[in-house]
Amino acid sequence: MPRWKPNARQRLVMAALSLFAEQGFDATTVAQIAERAELTRSTFFRHFGDKREILTAGQDVLSRLLAEGIASAPADVTPMAAVAAGLERAAGEMTSFNREVGPLLHAAIEANEELRERDALKSVGLAAVMAEALNARGVGGPTAQVAAELGVLAFKAGFARWTAPGPDPDQDPGDLATYTRAALDELRAAATELR
Amino acid sequence: MPRWKPNARQRLVMAALSLFAEQGFDATTVAQIAERAELTRSTFFRHFGDKREILTAGQDVLSRLLAEGIASAPADVTPMAAVAAGLERAAGEMTSFNREVGPLLHAAIEANEELRERDALKSVGLAAVMAEALNARGVGGPTAQVAAELGVLAFKAGFARWTAPGPDPDQDPGDLATYTRAALDELRAAATELR
Repeated sequence: MPRWKPNARQRLVMAALSLFAEQGFDATTVAQIAERAELTRSTFFRHFGDKREILTAGQDVLSRLLAEGIASAPADVTPMAAVAAGLERAAGEMTSFNREVGPLLHAAIEANEELRERDALKSVGLAAVMAEALNARGVGGPTAQVAAELGVLAFKAGFARWTAPGPDPDQDPGDLATYTRAALDELRAAATELR
Repeated sequence: MPRWKPNARQRLVMAALSLFAEQGFDATTVAQIAERAELTRSTFFRHFGDKREILTAGQDVLSRLLAEGIASAPADVTPMAAVAAGLERAAGEMTSFNREVGPLLHAAIEANEELRERDALKSVGLAAVMAEALNARGVGGPTAQVAAELGVLAFKAGFARWTAPGPDPDQDPGDLATYTRAALDELRAAATELR
């Protein structure tokens, strides 16, 4: 039983993901997604520009949250503390809905070359957005690039651990932020000890 | 005047890049590329699977060289020394042909969304290939990931500086390895000083 009460947007995502899994991304139409979600096509287009956006809209939201978190960190904190603030901001917005659909989204993207390419571009974009947000705080080129890459790696690693199935599916895995924080600490330790 | 004596493959690349710049990637056919290069279509297909491969074949070669360099570094060197060996191996294969076409390839890719997506996937692949080559040397997860990301950033930064137009176009910019080495040192310093 889902732990979240789905709104229209979430119903569209779940309908799309089940159809992609059943019949593939290419064979699925917007009309089918709307029908499965018991909504109209025009409701679909109020939420998404096309079916591809179902799979990539999350990356755009994530970019925005990471940049906002970095921008709103106190001016005197270190680059890594600013990255940590970005991760806290993004992780704080992720709900049990994200935790449940994350692996399904990932599977749908991995199954399709075009989607994998688009996802890769968004992923490269995440690091660029974080590096820009650090530049805007006066953090210089190489430091901003490295800190941003560590931030992206930490978010991905934390998200993967948060969504990994545990031994007891009914056990609450806790907040995503706990996982991204641990991953960032690990990566930062690895970076500072590099020889 | 080109500083390299073009072989068939290089003539195909130059013909394709000039056509992409003149009329766009989508409007250019393999037949046009072969004609401009004064070669046959079958010669084209001996070198490339399709016109898109003209722009991405370099990334595949690069992945292979980086992994080979890491694998062939002495067993007792540090992870960063292994990454440096990967960069030396790849940089050592880059000629003045690569230096001249690099910026043109980059412009053709940037002008087309589909190509940018494919390029991003290849770029994500570079880091994955380097991390795997480090894993095979017994370097653990986070350390391998961070070292691989630094390697990719260093190669890109070094290549960008090597191909950037200088004040005197006839001045020899020297070896790419000089630039990737400097970039890697900078990024490593930034990583170890991260706070």
